[in-house]
Amino acid sequence: MTDTYVYAFADAAEVPRELLGGKGAGLADMTRLGLPVPDGFTITTAACVHAMHSGGDWPDGLAAQIDSALAALEQRCGRRLGDDAAPLLVSVRSGAAVSMPGMMETILNLGLNDAAAHALAEETGDARFAYDSYRRLLQMFGEVVAGVGAHVFEHALTRRKAEQGVKLDTGLSGDDLRGLCTEFKRLYAEGSGTEFPQDPREQLRLAISAVFRSWGAPRAHVYRRANDISDDLGTAANICQMVFGNRGEGSGTGVCFSRDPATGEHVLYGEFLQNAQGEDVVAGIRTPEPIERMRELLPGAYEELVATVERLEKHHREVQDIEFTVEQGRLYMLQTRTAKRTAQAALKIVREFVAEGVITPDEAVLRIDPAQLDQLLHPRLDASVEAEPIARGLGASPGAAVGAAVFDADTAAARGAAGEAVVLVRWETTPDDIHGLIQAQGVVTSHGGMTSHAAVVARGMGKPCVAGVESAQIDEAARTLTVGDVVVREGDMITIDGAAGTLMLGALPLVAAELGEDFAAIAAWADERRRLRVRANADTPEDARRARELGAEGIGLCRTEHMFMAAERLPVVREMILATQDAKREAALAQLLPMQQSDFEAIFAAMAGLPVTVRLLDPPLHEFLPDRTALAVELAQTEPSPERARLERLADRVRQLSEQNPMLGTRGCRLALLHPGIYAMQVRAIVRGALAAAGRGEAAQIEIMIPLVAYAEELRRMRELVEEVIAEELESAGRELEISIGTMIELPRAALRAAEIAEYADFFSFGTNDLTQTTLGFSRDDAESAFLATYLEAGVIERNPFASIDMDGVGELVRIGAERGRAARPGLKLGICGEHGGDPASVAFFHGAGLDYVSCSPFRVPIARLAAARAALGATGERR
Amino acid sequence: MTDTYVYAFADAAEVPRELLGGKGAGLADMTRLGLPVPDGFTITTAACVHAMHSGGDWPDGLAAQIDSALAALEQRCGRRLGDDAAPLLVSVRSGAAVSMPGMMETILNLGLNDAAAHALAEETGDARFAYDSYRRLLQMFGEVVAGVGAHVFEHALTRRKAEQGVKLDTGLSGDDLRGLCTEFKRLYAEGSGTEFPQDPREQLRLAISAVFRSWGAPRAHVYRRANDISDDLGTAANICQMVFGNRGEGSGTGVCFSRDPATGEHVLYGEFLQNAQGEDVVAGIRTPEPIERMRELLPGAYEELVATVERLEKHHREVQDIEFTVEQGRLYMLQTRTAKRTAQAALKIVREFVAEGVITPDEAVLRIDPAQLDQLLHPRLDASVEAEPIARGLGASPGAAVGAAVFDADTAAARGAAGEAVVLVRWETTPDDIHGLIQAQGVVTSHGGMTSHAAVVARGMGKPCVAGVESAQIDEAARTLTVGDVVVREGDMITIDGAAGTLMLGALPLVAAELGEDFAAIAAWADERRRLRVRANADTPEDARRARELGAEGIGLCRTEHMFMAAERLPVVREMILATQDAKREAALAQLLPMQQSDFEAIFAAMAGLPVTVRLLDPPLHEFLPDRTALAVELAQTEPSPERARLERLADRVRQLSEQNPMLGTRGCRLALLHPGIYAMQVRAIVRGALAAAGRGEAAQIEIMIPLVAYAEELRRMRELVEEVIAEELESAGRELEISIGTMIELPRAALRAAEIAEYADFFSFGTNDLTQTTLGFSRDDAESAFLATYLEAGVIERNPFASIDMDGVGELVRIGAERGRAARPGLKLGICGEHGGDPASVAFFHGAGLDYVSCSPFRVPIARLAAARAALGATGERR
Repeated sequence: MTDTYVYAFADAAEVPRELLGGKGAGLADMTRLGLPVPDGFTITTAACVHAMHSGGDWPDGLAAQIDSALAALEQRCGRRLGDDAAPLLVSVRSGAAVSMPGMMETILNLGLNDAAAHALAEETGDARFAYDSYRRLLQMFGEVVAGVGAHVFEHALTRRKAEQGVKLDTGLSGDDLRGLCTEFKRLYAEGSGTEFPQDPREQLRLAISAVFRSWGAPRAHVYRRANDISDDLGTAANICQMVFGNRGEGSGTGVCFSRDPATGEHVLYGEFLQNAQGEDVVAGIRTPEPIERMRELLPGAYEELVATVERLEKHHREVQDIEFTVEQGRLYMLQTRTAKRTAQAALKIVREFVAEGVITPDEAVLRIDPAQLDQLLHPRLDASVEAEPIARGLGASPGAAVGAAVFDADTAAARGAAGEAVVLVRWETTPDDIHGLIQAQGVVTSHGGMTSHAAVVARGMGKPCVAGVESAQIDEAARTLTVGDVVVREGDMITIDGAAGTLMLGALPLVAAELGEDFAAIAAWADERRRLRVRANADTPEDARRARELGAEGIGLCRTEHMFMAAERLPVVREMILATQDAKREAALAQLLPMQQSDFEAIFAAMAGLPVTVRLLDPPLHEFLPDRTALAVELAQTEPSPERARLERLADRVRQLSEQNPMLGTRGCRLALLHPGIYAMQVRAIVRGALAAAGRGEAAQIEIMIPLVAYAEELRRMRELVEEVIAEELESAGRELEISIGTMIELPRAALRAAEIAEYADFFSFGTNDLTQTTLGFSRDDAESAFLATYLEAGVIERNPFASIDMDGVGELVRIGAERGRAARPGLKLGICGEHGGDPASVAFFHGAGLDYVSCSPFRVPIARLAAARAALGATGERR
Repeated sequence: MTDTYVYAFADAAEVPRELLGGKGAGLADMTRLGLPVPDGFTITTAACVHAMHSGGDWPDGLAAQIDSALAALEQRCGRRLGDDAAPLLVSVRSGAAVSMPGMMETILNLGLNDAAAHALAEETGDARFAYDSYRRLLQMFGEVVAGVGAHVFEHALTRRKAEQGVKLDTGLSGDDLRGLCTEFKRLYAEGSGTEFPQDPREQLRLAISAVFRSWGAPRAHVYRRANDISDDLGTAANICQMVFGNRGEGSGTGVCFSRDPATGEHVLYGEFLQNAQGEDVVAGIRTPEPIERMRELLPGAYEELVATVERLEKHHREVQDIEFTVEQGRLYMLQTRTAKRTAQAALKIVREFVAEGVITPDEAVLRIDPAQLDQLLHPRLDASVEAEPIARGLGASPGAAVGAAVFDADTAAARGAAGEAVVLVRWETTPDDIHGLIQAQGVVTSHGGMTSHAAVVARGMGKPCVAGVESAQIDEAARTLTVGDVVVREGDMITIDGAAGTLMLGALPLVAAELGEDFAAIAAWADERRRLRVRANADTPEDARRARELGAEGIGLCRTEHMFMAAERLPVVREMILATQDAKREAALAQLLPMQQSDFEAIFAAMAGLPVTVRLLDPPLHEFLPDRTALAVELAQTEPSPERARLERLADRVRQLSEQNPMLGTRGCRLALLHPGIYAMQVRAIVRGALAAAGRGEAAQIEIMIPLVAYAEELRRMRELVEEVIAEELESAGRELEISIGTMIELPRAALRAAEIAEYADFFSFGTNDLTQTTLGFSRDDAESAFLATYLEAGVIERNPFASIDMDGVGELVRIGAERGRAARPGLKLGICGEHGGDPASVAFFHGAGLDYVSCSPFRVPIARLAAARAALGATGERR
């Protein structure tokens, strides 16, 4: 018993789509609906997968099944492959289960050889048609099967047309084309080292193997990588009787959509070309005309097409992308599939489908790909303007930005504050560059990846970022960015596309972001359906307000370190760090207290009525000090003087605080256990800020979060400290305030010991960025620029674990932490606040893990709302 | 119903030792045996624990239970507390379940007040005795309960003796002493602000509370920390009728051991003091005499003592440490407990116990504390010589070393190679110092902890190391180490004790290490009983040979990075790293190949017949390059020149390779996935070395280990690479060789995904050093010097997780990895090769987790052998 690998279109309606591929399933479906579809059969993806794993060998039984399907097809058509009176011609086309438009292979007119071409000319009385079909076969077969470059044939065709003084292929006579076929066969033999196979069954065998092979081609691989499609699916091959759009004025070919895929408008949208086969459109030799033109040229076929398209949309309950051919007035449907469309169109379409009663609101929510919403959330390049990128990097934060290139944060801050649009260009950014980032329209780095400092901060701010432009040389001293011979100087206008990861010269036109009412309607459905709450990561009142506008239901992560970085505060922060006496340290902390207090007050006010989780200081102290190497160089160049002595003391302290692996060093609660004064000051500022906001009727629900807990005992002590300060402040203010205290679960040990830790925590927030770093042993700062790109490219791992949660590893720890925490403390509130909170696949995972909320950057809040609803409706985050 | 907190000695024989404490249990036991023990009762540790958690408050019922036990005692003795005719005097002594000699509190003669002292004088007709007893109570009570400094009373006593012109206390008359009592009461009131309580029941209440309180005293805490005793146990309090060794010539007091605790010799060993109470010995006022003297002075009591001691040893089947008092010829046993002893004595004693049939070999193995063997394994200070340390640090690698202080590795290497004994003194060491470490007798660092580079390497080499001597200022330029006013200059002789963590001036005499035949006998029993195999971590043939001598059954971790560090190789290694062309890199690798090959050949030969696990290159490449900051400074100071250009290129490359968190960066298999040539060269060298050794009949069982795997796919690719090279080499040599291929499990993800990873692994070796770093988020290089000391000191965590495995966190991952790996691949070989392999508690854990072997530094192999046997016999690694 061998498996069944081959199904006639008419028998395949119940075969799973994974086996038939999209094209095969569409053909089978249309056949069952009784629509005009050429006859044929599909070879399943399972055959391709087998061939992939066997060095190209076909599975047992496949050849025999093809023979038998072919015999049945010949029987039904009354034509035979290679017949010298009525030859059967077929197309061989790939078709994967997941749509990969333009990525796969097609061979038309298979079955022709010298004798069959002659027979076809005789039969149709149209030598031009017969030899045009033959030369097309030779060209496509040469390219797809034998690897002969397309240009070889194109040159010969162009030469032949020039010799004959004609512009269009249609100007060549039957004789011209027969001569061209002879030349094509010679070119084929020269280019491939083998003769073109005259045996049609040999042609078929080779063509099917070539389709299977095409699945593994580099461009297909790259497409799958970019679209998160598994390499393991394989493609089906569809063998279909040829119909001809090139049989005169009554024939033609076209593609159309049941609605406008750019706007979503409910009109038939498409293109048509009279007396042509599909490749003529692709080759750009003739320009197709709008579909309305077909109404004039072939009104009968047009009416039938309109009715068929409507019927297909209704049947599939989805916008259809359709290929058709008209052969001598008769319409044939060649393909139907769900149409790709812009985010804007997608929203309008599903909303109208609901209005039309075609789908339910549940389905509407499931129809929108949350990741696609990114397109709407940031200003973007005007798609009508074409511009060649000078360099490519990672699309690290979506949206487009235009501005003058500047090469350091101070310049960015100064020129930006003066009202100029600037784009900050850096080797990589550090927290010291934050003021420049704030004033820049966007940022480009030559180093670092999707979660480099620049990328994370830019996404948080909703600013476009292109990271890791490895081909660019950035010379900060010379203030230039060089790619090959192109030199961008300070002040030159550049444009970046943070979704595509491209860098262009000049100021390209942008189109503003617009969520629009279609989104609002669908988001409302989503909000009714989701269980997960969606909060935002926001460190400033502006971020908080923006997040709230975008639907955030609170702040899940308010980092306090950025508050320490402001230019006027850094000197005080450094004083605090460098203090060798307690009194001096206390004095510096006392100076910082009112500053932090006003920060908190404004953020709490912006989130009045909603929860705000404040994370106490997390980074190691040396992040606030100058760079060790730069200091050493400065010291080496300074003559003995009081200034040098000061520098020396500073350098000593920097060296003392420097760590081999700061990620795993003295930060978070560890720092606070050594120097409780910092947290005490922060808690004081929080309570005072909260009381002040509440006094104005703008009370938020305050949650204080302790970072980097590995041991329950750490949290016990921290909680004690925090509770003491809260009690002191409330007592001295004579006020009451509920403040909950919890922790981040961001170390594997914390997840494993969640039961103990929960004893001292009112809530857990999974810090999946750090948890990913420790679980995988990947330093985020280093991995992306060093080896992660190679890992992804080479397929060692499938997704960047900093962008989409590693469900198997990090995810298991999240599940363990959630289960053990809840078991020990029923009702424990659980959230996550890593970058993953805005990734749809991760959101689905967190839904499944039973978390209460996700928190993400403000601009990803709409995406998370939708993803959460989809998860509640059963969508998973698994890859296709 | 309240709990029972109080037990009379006579009723307590069945009460658990955890409740009675060691002293109480000993007294109850001796009472049951019918030995002469003063009457009394014990208040359990549970009462102390309750008081500890309630701010000192006693549990309900305790006061009533004490009253009733006291009433019963008074009844049995025919004396009453505070009675003005026959007053009962009692001692109040602490006694924890785990012996803490000298750490706890004692109050004697409680029950005396002005009236009772008078009554006692009347009753005994001995005013000197009565008032001597009273002044002792005043002094001890003042000190223990009221916190009056001991010196206050000592000064008064000394003054009084001087006034009377006597030298000994016994020279003072009853009147003198009565006067002294009056003075002591005044001093008590002055020192404490309260009057000495005349009510004996008040005395008792206060004394018991003071005993409870003493459990939390700083010195007790420090002792527990040092001896790995839980803070949660609490102490019992023993209330015991007083007997008096100070009632004349027929009285006396002493301590004795049933065998010599220093040598283990089977002789009664101890000290005796006539007409004295125990504190006189402690106070050092009178020098006790050898126990034999008692035979002459009090022959009857002596004979009874000898018989009692033998009986107690037989009863307890352990060497006993005994306190006794003789009152007017009558022997009283005051305490018996298991004697502390040297490692050497411990070995001899258990061996003789087995010979005498007292215990079985199983018990012998369980009687030896493996950690104590450390004492035997390294040369040590001659205990007879006293020397004051000038500074203290961490005892990071045991043993003592003597040598001239040198301040850099080159000097150490040069002077050491010339035959001079040197001790390397560094701020901290790096892999660049390895050549100096090799030639030094020992190492001192002012920075870093138990698992700093210096400590780890030193332990691996069996060299003494004192790490983290924070009080020492090391000035490499001036070549001095300064502690306060003491300056050690280069060439000055110093001595270090790597067990005690001390640094002494001058060359102190050492005693050589000697395992001896007692150890050999017990190790043989251990080897018969253990299930865990014991291997060594060894990177050189010398280490391998030494490990084998100490009983290693193979090498569990042969690191290859040290092989890259040798002075003549480093330039080639750097060439390889700096190469921008493949050809140049390949050339450098080709140069390294024969060097590595000969290393491997020698190591394999030394381990002929045994398994050797070679770990392919693990550290990031920048570890082999100069320091970034030093380079930057050098660059800043170099004029433009070809040399400067070279330096610039080097600095660029260093910057390019530098990582924020190298621990989590491009190392191990990640590096090999980017640059497969390095591993290919290493595998080639391994195979060639193995074939060469095998050719001489010295074949080892080769195991190749891939480090830092997080994903099964990484290992799959690495395995493919390794197998290819092996096949190539074997084919070209025309030979056969079995080589197994496995991986380290050192990342949390690897442990969680062990089932998948096991598919490509013949063995797992848990790399618990790195697993601890990632699971806890503690950088080993940073944590110990920065916050871990504080964590341990403050009791946030109980044990250094780098020294003894964190069973709850890291341990769970080890268990998960072992279970899932074995489930997927039955028979998968499992080992561990972190520092924990030589820690007895960790070894017990690994036994329980079902591992096949542990691997540790050569000098810890004997410890691991014993620990493994104890684990097999059921001993756990849990703290006491």
